Amino acid sequence: MNKIPFPVIHRLSYVFEILNKLEEQGIKKVSSAQLGKYLGQTAHTVRKDIHFIGIAGTAGTKYDIAGLKTLISRHLGFGIPKKSCIVGLGKLGSALLEYTLAIPQGAFRIVAGFDSNINRVETIHTPIELFPAYRIEETVKRLQIELALIVVPPQQAQEAADRCCDGGVTGLLNFTPTVIKPKRDGIFVRSIDISGELRILAALAYTTTIMNE
Amino acid sequence: MNKIPFPVIHRLSYVFEILNKLEEQGIKKVSSAQLGKYLGQTAHTVRKDIHFIGIAGTAGTKYDIAGLKTLISRHLGFGIPKKSCIVGLGKLGSALLEYTLAIPQGAFRIVAGFDSNINRVETIHTPIELFPAYRIEETVKRLQIELALIVVPPQQAQEAADRCCDGGVTGLLNFTPTVIKPKRDGIFVRSIDISGELRILAALAYTTTIMNE
Repeated sequence: MNKIPFPVIHRLSYVFEILNKLEEQGIKKVSSAQLGKYLGQTAHTVRKDIHFIGIAGTAGTKYDIAGLKTLISRHLGFGIPKKSCIVGLGKLGSALLEYTLAIPQGAFRIVAGFDSNINRVETIHTPIELFPAYRIEETVKRLQIELALIVVPPQQAQEAADRCCDGGVTGLLNFTPTVIKPKRDGIFVRSIDISGELRILAALAYTTTIMNE
Repeated sequence: MNKIPFPVIHRLSYVFEILNKLEEQGIKKVSSAQLGKYLGQTAHTVRKDIHFIGIAGTAGTKYDIAGLKTLISRHLGFGIPKKSCIVGLGKLGSALLEYTLAIPQGAFRIVAGFDSNINRVETIHTPIELFPAYRIEETVKRLQIELALIVVPPQQAQEAADRCCDGGVTGLLNFTPTVIKPKRDGIFVRSIDISGELRILAALAYTTTIMNE
């Protein structure tokens, strides 16, 4: 298997998302120009990325969506679901637990949840195992969990992330508005900043109003 | 007030987020190089953006965080909270309702929620008003709501967005894995794709494993 540069992995993961969406709409084929439009990239970059995993294309090429999905899935390992956990089972964490369990199996599978509140751990009804927070490191190790969603209060985010890193995760999805630093190299952090996104929309709304005056 | 180009608005909103986080950590001053690092932009771009709203800076300048926050807030209108609503009050929508109501007032304020299930509308306990989905357009108009969080099932996302657009919103935050098209120009859509983010982390985890073999 070739080494794939990170920016290519990143873009191909998005391409995979887009292909899923197009497929849902009953579309069978897509050009590099169309993919580029969705991605905010040039058609040339899209073709180069796809060439990287094995399909050469020219400006006119239309890719078969199902075939391209299989190819990306194979190169990015989407056929083997990564075991994942949720740390923090408050309102948002519990909702994310139900939400992610309902996503059809594929790139990831939620196998455990953690909370520092033992009462919460004992009363939430879910098909997966829940554990008190002090057992994060041991459980992540034992179950070979690779990804963790961090949904704790901001002031507990770094400690929760550290425990997951000690257990051996390779990826953290941070739902808190704090910056989380991974404990060592080779651990990736991505953030979903809900209030930040709303702030951007608010700014766009405000400045549009000004521009239209 | 000067017109601000969209990419600048976008970056300055992120700068505002970063300043919030640095301030939480007790930091008082920050350089353009440090901000650029967080943003994935050059220090030069950061300085140009900040110059746009009134502070000239050179490579060595350290910005006062509190002062810069006030300036950005004034130019992007963060002092006037945009009225916002949540469409879809299932598990994730209800959790987002509680979550966003707990965020300190600032750029936005949630004032209404909608769901097509009347029973749900009547039984959820929350300090804000809830309405059945058929009243979206009328209510958005009457309350002058500007932003909408779309948290409905994917197949209902476009219709929910259309009703919000008919009511006059200028921004949509899409939590569904579908592409939402705004009904007319001047409406901004941003997406939070939870399963997509997990897929990227899964790909990074997989390809790292390969690279380390």
